[in-house]
Amino acid sequence: MKGLMMEFQLTLPVVLRRAETLFADKPVISRLPDKSIHRYTYGEMAERARRLAVALGSLGVAPGDRVATLAWNGYQHLEAYFGIPLSGAILHTLNPRLSGDDLAYIVSNAGDSVLLVDETLLPVYEKFKDRVRLEHVIVMSQKTEAPAGLKSYERLLADTDPRSYRERSVDENDAAAMCYSSGTTGRPKGVLYSHRALVLHSIGEAMVDTLGVSERDVLLPVVPMFHVNAWGLPYTCALVGATLVFPGPHLDAESVLELFEKERVTLAAGVPTVWLGILTALEKEPDRWKTQAGLRMVVGGSAAPLSMIKGFDRHGMRIIHAWGMTETTPLGSVSNLVSGLANASDDARYATRAKQGIPSALFEIRARGESGLIPWDDTAMGELEVRGPWVAASYYNAPGSDDRFTGDGWFKTGDIVSIDRHGYIEIKDRTKDLVKSGGEWISTVALENALMGHPAVAEAAVIAANHPKWQERPLAIVTLKKDKTATAEELIAFLATQFPKWWLPDAVEFVDAIPRTATGKFYKMALRDRFKDALLAKA
Amino acid sequence: MKGLMMEFQLTLPVVLRRAETLFADKPVISRLPDKSIHRYTYGEMAERARRLAVALGSLGVAPGDRVATLAWNGYQHLEAYFGIPLSGAILHTLNPRLSGDDLAYIVSNAGDSVLLVDETLLPVYEKFKDRVRLEHVIVMSQKTEAPAGLKSYERLLADTDPRSYRERSVDENDAAAMCYSSGTTGRPKGVLYSHRALVLHSIGEAMVDTLGVSERDVLLPVVPMFHVNAWGLPYTCALVGATLVFPGPHLDAESVLELFEKERVTLAAGVPTVWLGILTALEKEPDRWKTQAGLRMVVGGSAAPLSMIKGFDRHGMRIIHAWGMTETTPLGSVSNLVSGLANASDDARYATRAKQGIPSALFEIRARGESGLIPWDDTAMGELEVRGPWVAASYYNAPGSDDRFTGDGWFKTGDIVSIDRHGYIEIKDRTKDLVKSGGEWISTVALENALMGHPAVAEAAVIAANHPKWQERPLAIVTLKKDKTATAEELIAFLATQFPKWWLPDAVEFVDAIPRTATGKFYKMALRDRFKDALLAKA
Repeated sequence: MKGLMMEFQLTLPVVLRRAETLFADKPVISRLPDKSIHRYTYGEMAERARRLAVALGSLGVAPGDRVATLAWNGYQHLEAYFGIPLSGAILHTLNPRLSGDDLAYIVSNAGDSVLLVDETLLPVYEKFKDRVRLEHVIVMSQKTEAPAGLKSYERLLADTDPRSYRERSVDENDAAAMCYSSGTTGRPKGVLYSHRALVLHSIGEAMVDTLGVSERDVLLPVVPMFHVNAWGLPYTCALVGATLVFPGPHLDAESVLELFEKERVTLAAGVPTVWLGILTALEKEPDRWKTQAGLRMVVGGSAAPLSMIKGFDRHGMRIIHAWGMTETTPLGSVSNLVSGLANASDDARYATRAKQGIPSALFEIRARGESGLIPWDDTAMGELEVRGPWVAASYYNAPGSDDRFTGDGWFKTGDIVSIDRHGYIEIKDRTKDLVKSGGEWISTVALENALMGHPAVAEAAVIAANHPKWQERPLAIVTLKKDKTATAEELIAFLATQFPKWWLPDAVEFVDAIPRTATGKFYKMALRDRFKDALLAKA
Repeated sequence: MKGLMMEFQLTLPVVLRRAETLFADKPVISRLPDKSIHRYTYGEMAERARRLAVALGSLGVAPGDRVATLAWNGYQHLEAYFGIPLSGAILHTLNPRLSGDDLAYIVSNAGDSVLLVDETLLPVYEKFKDRVRLEHVIVMSQKTEAPAGLKSYERLLADTDPRSYRERSVDENDAAAMCYSSGTTGRPKGVLYSHRALVLHSIGEAMVDTLGVSERDVLLPVVPMFHVNAWGLPYTCALVGATLVFPGPHLDAESVLELFEKERVTLAAGVPTVWLGILTALEKEPDRWKTQAGLRMVVGGSAAPLSMIKGFDRHGMRIIHAWGMTETTPLGSVSNLVSGLANASDDARYATRAKQGIPSALFEIRARGESGLIPWDDTAMGELEVRGPWVAASYYNAPGSDDRFTGDGWFKTGDIVSIDRHGYIEIKDRTKDLVKSGGEWISTVALENALMGHPAVAEAAVIAANHPKWQERPLAIVTLKKDKTATAEELIAFLATQFPKWWLPDAVEFVDAIPRTATGKFYKMALRDRFKDALLAKA
């Protein structure tokens, strides 16, 4: 027997309607490329999003078409977040840090027909424009003109009558947005988010036990809007009416700290490297910026070192560790402390906060080791598998990628984790980075984090190097701080106090810098190419 | 184009699985009829819920069958909340305060085939048992025996092998639960909740800007589990892992305050009459109970007087005003203060907290006056219409009730409201209680609340009485406090300082007590029957 409730669809137009009805006067604040500040309201944003939807329709964009953006975090990008899905098209965010090759591949693979590009990012567009077929390229800036052959976003909106907007009937399972996962191996693969996934994810982020985003928050997403929809936060903010502060292209520590102070930011989100820069700036000039008491900073993308969590605590700012992937919209888990840890020691509480957290509501986890699902004992390691209403079921236009999903419908994350009895996930490694030494697994992430706790180490990566006896053994690649020194023996002795002997790297290579991917992660494939036989040479 | 996300269904089995996986050790605490305390965990609850599901199946209960409960708030009732839907059947909660007539009608109208009844409520069952056809009656107590002809709940569970439980595939739109609305006019009408509605409602209640239920909460629902699923809170608690404290049949102020102290309750929920009793007890013995700092108390069912909100603030306890209906699962709106009121005067903040609040996420509101939708200006009055994923689309087996829904799919609440620019709803009246005086509307609720602020008044109701010139005029019906006196002239002079002259009641009738419905609301239909022509006699 069916229930007798309304068939109310969970769609982005509902989110926008809520922002406009209840939070029309709440501000959206954006830093522009010239560092000036643009201010308007959710009410004005909604009106312009509808203009964009109408304008796209008049350009011939049809429901289901892919409309790409190549833009920093700002109000025009927010208008695209709503305006493109409002038109029935699919918002496809492009990462300007990718190579021209990758961008050309992604735009072609997605079949994007229109591109919205920040004026400051036109040089990125130049890198791939000859290899893609776009019907329209629309330039976002403060001006109403655009270079020859391109359209001006502001002109387009000005010439549009928002009264001709007609709300379309949208099924919650229709696609609304798309983002390509930045695989460190293989071609990027597209994830196609439904309206339902985005809306449920937004509600999930506003629950107390995840990110707790509320109307009273002033949220600054440092995480780019081209990076899994800035972790869905623009949608969450619109849903709950939180004030949004966009940093534009200015992501340096001083610019972000200035916005923290001036706009009274209460919640921010970004990857560890951003926060490390901010912590360094704070340690240098602890009295320069007055931030809001209890400012929460969500960290994701890669693991936040314990030293960073403690460092911010000293400044009255709280790091909240979260985990997710492009394939999970992205929020999967958040490391708030459960009540069972209320009376735990400081060390135990910090150790838990440094984990990736317990799963969000509706998000289910399990992990599979070499002999089946692992127990939740904080020790056994296995590949994390997840499922839920905001987890991808397949990739877009990517034949041969079925091996990322289990036969019973779970997504294989590629992360090697342990899980403790409270359900806290701890990422030990990526499946492809794990060292398999004589049939035993060694976590490179644990070794890296420990090495980065050494006073002389700036950055450290650990990779699996080939070994004649053990098949693979760990090899550390280290960048020292400018004015510090340390020998390989010293570093290995330092690790020996924290790990079993058979986990210790067989050798340490010192390099000037560790290569990074377009999303700021260590580019381990390049390291492996260079160092995979380094131990054979020594053996 | 469809999104490529998992078709993950929003169902109660997902909620139970989460409670069992992540919060197996969290406590569920119940006060029994003999006042002793029963303690166990969500893990044990889940195991027994599965036993119940298996047992119902062996009794011949089939998917879609209705299984009724007649029970106080306690752990066995919680098992039924999950076990009945787990079996595929529909949980139908019966209100023991209803008359035997109403119960016989409701059980027959729903077609209930099985009843789970608290041993202490067997006398209520006796009142209607000869007028209904139930295949099995199962008695819940601590014992493994039951009176002749009835089954023992504990015996049934003990005799069941939980390993024979097989998880059914459930569509999120399948019915999971049912509750009859206690209309003060006409027959009660059944609302049939889908799994989807209950799950979305639970997530909604855990958002910061609604009730903010979290894993760290210890929640005591004074609101009965037969009253719109205790406002959905048992499901919300299981989803987030909050500790549950059930008061059993002991709802007097001292028993509840004792649980507040002993179990360190952080969040409670109930109707205003319960909280008024608790406030009186606290004022009498302010140092007797040590409650948790900042204890939140959700109030719904009818309006909380401003004096009560202020009274609890003096004791460090925070009243949170909420609004909902059986037809809305029930949470529709919550009166937290938005940031725009952060700098408002104390008076303005209290006035807002006394309103019914702004709508929950995904819950949409509008109000219709005599000439169309009203503006949100805090003044215009209209009937509140709502829609959302947890709003009823129709009633169960109730022909002729279509007039409660608009042509474009909104539910007509029957509440007359004004809405302010922030979206705060203020209930002025029920449509059927409103006084229509010479074409103008007068809110009886506003007059009642003002009258109850007079130091001599214990209770006050205002009804529409027939009038030869104005069609209807307000008539006040008042119960004075035991040792206080006041004349009709004094009370009307008291109101004259707060309302326009044409709003003032034409007369005041003094009575010993105001009749109440089974859910504790003023039974205005009875008052109108008695007093509707009182003004004609005087004219």
